[in-house]
Amino acid sequence: MTPTVSANNDLDAVIGIDFGTLSGRAVVVRVSDGAELASAVHEFRHGVVETALPGSGRPLPPDTALQVPEDYRRVLRDAVPKALAASGVPPERVVGIGTDFTASTPMPVLADGTPLCELPRFADRPHAYPKLWKHHAAQRQADRVNEVAERRGEPWLDRYGGRISAEWQFAKALQVLEEDPEVYAATERWIEAADWIVWELCGAETRNVCTAGYKGIHQDGRWPSRAYLAELDERFADFAADKLAHPLSPLGGLAGRLTARAAAWTRLPEGIAVAVGNVDAHVTAAAAQAVAPGRLLAVMGTSTCHVMNGAELARVPGMCGVVKDGIVPGLWGYEAGQSGVGDIFGWFVDNAVPAEYAAEAAGRGIGVHELLSERAAARPVGAHGLIALDWHNGNRSVLVDHDLSGVVAGLTLATRPEDVYGALVEATAFGTRTIVDAFEGAGVPVREIVVAGGLVRNPFVMRTYADVLRRPLKLIASDQGPAVGSAIHAAVAAGAYPDIQAASAAMGRVRPEPVEPDQERADAYDELYAVYTDLHDHFGRGGTDALHRLRRIRNAAASR
Amino acid sequence: MTPTVSANNDLDAVIGIDFGTLSGRAVVVRVSDGAELASAVHEFRHGVVETALPGSGRPLPPDTALQVPEDYRRVLRDAVPKALAASGVPPERVVGIGTDFTASTPMPVLADGTPLCELPRFADRPHAYPKLWKHHAAQRQADRVNEVAERRGEPWLDRYGGRISAEWQFAKALQVLEEDPEVYAATERWIEAADWIVWELCGAETRNVCTAGYKGIHQDGRWPSRAYLAELDERFADFAADKLAHPLSPLGGLAGRLTARAAAWTRLPEGIAVAVGNVDAHVTAAAAQAVAPGRLLAVMGTSTCHVMNGAELARVPGMCGVVKDGIVPGLWGYEAGQSGVGDIFGWFVDNAVPAEYAAEAAGRGIGVHELLSERAAARPVGAHGLIALDWHNGNRSVLVDHDLSGVVAGLTLATRPEDVYGALVEATAFGTRTIVDAFEGAGVPVREIVVAGGLVRNPFVMRTYADVLRRPLKLIASDQGPAVGSAIHAAVAAGAYPDIQAASAAMGRVRPEPVEPDQERADAYDELYAVYTDLHDHFGRGGTDALHRLRRIRNAAASR
Repeated sequence: MTPTVSANNDLDAVIGIDFGTLSGRAVVVRVSDGAELASAVHEFRHGVVETALPGSGRPLPPDTALQVPEDYRRVLRDAVPKALAASGVPPERVVGIGTDFTASTPMPVLADGTPLCELPRFADRPHAYPKLWKHHAAQRQADRVNEVAERRGEPWLDRYGGRISAEWQFAKALQVLEEDPEVYAATERWIEAADWIVWELCGAETRNVCTAGYKGIHQDGRWPSRAYLAELDERFADFAADKLAHPLSPLGGLAGRLTARAAAWTRLPEGIAVAVGNVDAHVTAAAAQAVAPGRLLAVMGTSTCHVMNGAELARVPGMCGVVKDGIVPGLWGYEAGQSGVGDIFGWFVDNAVPAEYAAEAAGRGIGVHELLSERAAARPVGAHGLIALDWHNGNRSVLVDHDLSGVVAGLTLATRPEDVYGALVEATAFGTRTIVDAFEGAGVPVREIVVAGGLVRNPFVMRTYADVLRRPLKLIASDQGPAVGSAIHAAVAAGAYPDIQAASAAMGRVRPEPVEPDQERADAYDELYAVYTDLHDHFGRGGTDALHRLRRIRNAAASR
Repeated sequence: MTPTVSANNDLDAVIGIDFGTLSGRAVVVRVSDGAELASAVHEFRHGVVETALPGSGRPLPPDTALQVPEDYRRVLRDAVPKALAASGVPPERVVGIGTDFTASTPMPVLADGTPLCELPRFADRPHAYPKLWKHHAAQRQADRVNEVAERRGEPWLDRYGGRISAEWQFAKALQVLEEDPEVYAATERWIEAADWIVWELCGAETRNVCTAGYKGIHQDGRWPSRAYLAELDERFADFAADKLAHPLSPLGGLAGRLTARAAAWTRLPEGIAVAVGNVDAHVTAAAAQAVAPGRLLAVMGTSTCHVMNGAELARVPGMCGVVKDGIVPGLWGYEAGQSGVGDIFGWFVDNAVPAEYAAEAAGRGIGVHELLSERAAARPVGAHGLIALDWHNGNRSVLVDHDLSGVVAGLTLATRPEDVYGALVEATAFGTRTIVDAFEGAGVPVREIVVAGGLVRNPFVMRTYADVLRRPLKLIASDQGPAVGSAIHAAVAAGAYPDIQAASAAMGRVRPEPVEPDQERADAYDELYAVYTDLHDHFGRGGTDALHRLRRIRNAAASR
């Protein structure tokens, strides 16, 4: 692109970097209007370390998911200069850099930020490495985190739907303590990768309110109490005071200035603004113009993450978390989630679609998802006679129960693959409607729905959601929502806008035409939603314990 | 085969003919021991007439299923001589002929047995043709048959699980009356094809107790009353008296002697014994040595039909019918059924198994059913975490509800096709156990279980049933159970044995080794059966009306 020549700051740019599960993506964004000028992706050399440690090849236990910090630095050294070069923006016009990360992805470091896994004496110790969000080996510790919190009646438990995830900081730190006390003892700081990468950029430790709140149980200005931590493990009593405690930085704030070292890596000017760290889903709200109270952002991919600001604190059943200032300063940030969405559609296509469908799709040069969507869309609502429960990966919101599983009801000898596919898409939409209803039932109004994530590209899914939710869906205009959101935060940190709201309004983008609901289909879906709710409540709220019994039988059988 | 040369009646043979949906099969059986000497099949030229009448090509309304009587005669002229020739048995050693038919397959005929459809003036009238068992266009009439019976408190309704099927005689005759009164008026006799073919063989009308009882509402020596019939339709008041009334003949009885005309068709000696007509499932009991009280015969194919004799009349909930002398004289014959069994497995293979499975099966030269069975059998019971309800084609016994539909619960992203396949096989086994429990709960003991039908060839299905039922399964030794059963009835009619019991003991055959249950798997299935029963009762006995709502929504959507 040719930058517009202008005397004002129309040529100013910011850089946003989204650190995902397998790669990091840098995007160069114009400060004045959010135009995406160029981007570049760097794949992590080690990806997700799941079976063996790099170097020694030491085998890892099941459910382990680690990463290598040097892979993160390479994104700074590779993707940033490439994106910048491709944009044609002169480096001196870049005024700030912002980042977001998967979370919770905590790591043990020294007081100067050096990752423990980079010390030769710990290079062969799994617990010295960052634990990626999907590291699920700390379930035992998470169970204790919850059990002790419940017993003690910890006031913060309610803010997380009554359940702290095994994916979050505390369970993971407790696992390090129990399984490798030496690494734990050497851990001077226990820090989210979201904050560590900012440390690498600006040379000073900061802690953002978002990860501290949603993943670190920081509520009402406090970490969990010493007494609580001691009850988890005597040796864990000072964990928060010793390894976490640090002033928290507001989102959109200035973490610091780009160091000479980081300037050399990124080929950006030393001293430009570095924004406070952030989480991928939450930062996307800025890119999707979804920061005002009542604008629900659904980031729809393999799973769905919902984030929404509210003016007040309310107890919304089944939320993943509610955090003051958690999305933008001054508001309560609510987070909800659906554990399986695109994953369920993918599972169906991989496991339940016969050869003739694959052949027809291949012959027409389309994907199987597209073929199934096309056929499902051609049938009147309800003509398949099916209802599904979208719990193939458990239920996060609003039931907070990962031992639930999927159900399909209404099958006949005339049921075709597209019927079940359609019912699964609808089930996830009904799941979203259940979440929206939970917000509204708790007095937190949902005024608008905005969608980001890979599934915005599936028109059948979007149409179904609009019909089921009986609302227009605004779709994010960018394919790289998190990175653009990070760039918007960088613009705020650089002082180009007074706050995230103003920057989001100027730089965030949604497509001009929302997906509008169809009245007739919406009416038909109301009837199906009533059946969904019947089954949802029966299977999920104690009408029967059938799914839990099946899970116990399965686990017992698998261990025989 | 070379017949044994002997001075006694070891060379005597009988012929059994099974008239199925698409073909007729004749088998030549040795009287002394039931050895199957040869068989031959004749495919019906017109198969099932569903879309257009033969000859005129007149289009037929949906759910119509007719047949052509001349196709039945061709079985006599083609399959019988072929089987006889192949057997090497000299025609003069054939002492009797027996038949069984699909039912209810009623037809309108003149007083001399001439089918109305064979009269030129009615050749173009759909209602002049036999209505095959699966003709489903008389549902409206069946609804009235039931509604009026309920209102009047007809005592016989209870004998049929509280519901008369649209497949049976009365609904079909009422449809003729309402839709083509001229054909109805010309109908001098309304007769089951099971009895008509016997008429063709021996030249005289007979009526067997089996079709009269199970399909014709003949109970306690009476047809439904004139008052009841009049309430269905004024013009229908004398239906039973005019078009049905005839002395009933006991099963195994002698209907008459082979006429010269039929002898010429079949190349059998004129004057040999012709057995009373019968129904395919019921006559199989003789071939499977399952005629003693408490021996339940399950004829397992696309659907399953259960027949069992009991010494006493009991009210067993959800039976299809209980008829005095209905399987053998002197006992109460109970019939139950599962609407979908092999059909459900076939539906799954056709609609829900991915290409790689088809490719692997093809590569190994086995069927997809075999591959799925092998993989399902390799997993410990319950390891799939699933429960299914086997209602894809509705539920006949014990719920008597054809608006129910199938359910699969416990799905996860790790669920594989063999898991669901295994769960569907198990679901049908749980359905059978529910029926066995209903018998025993009503005081009708089930002492043994014998299996016939195409599914005896699937070892995984048989193993699963033995484990779920916690009983050894005896398997019929013949692949042509109904035809052999008909031959056994012929032997009785010919006087070679005093009764069906004695003939069945000498000529019926089960495999020497029953399928034995495995104690550990049976215990594991008990747990799953408890979950099945939970879901069965919730969805089937009014815990929720979700499946009925889905059916109504589907039907409404389909008609938009």
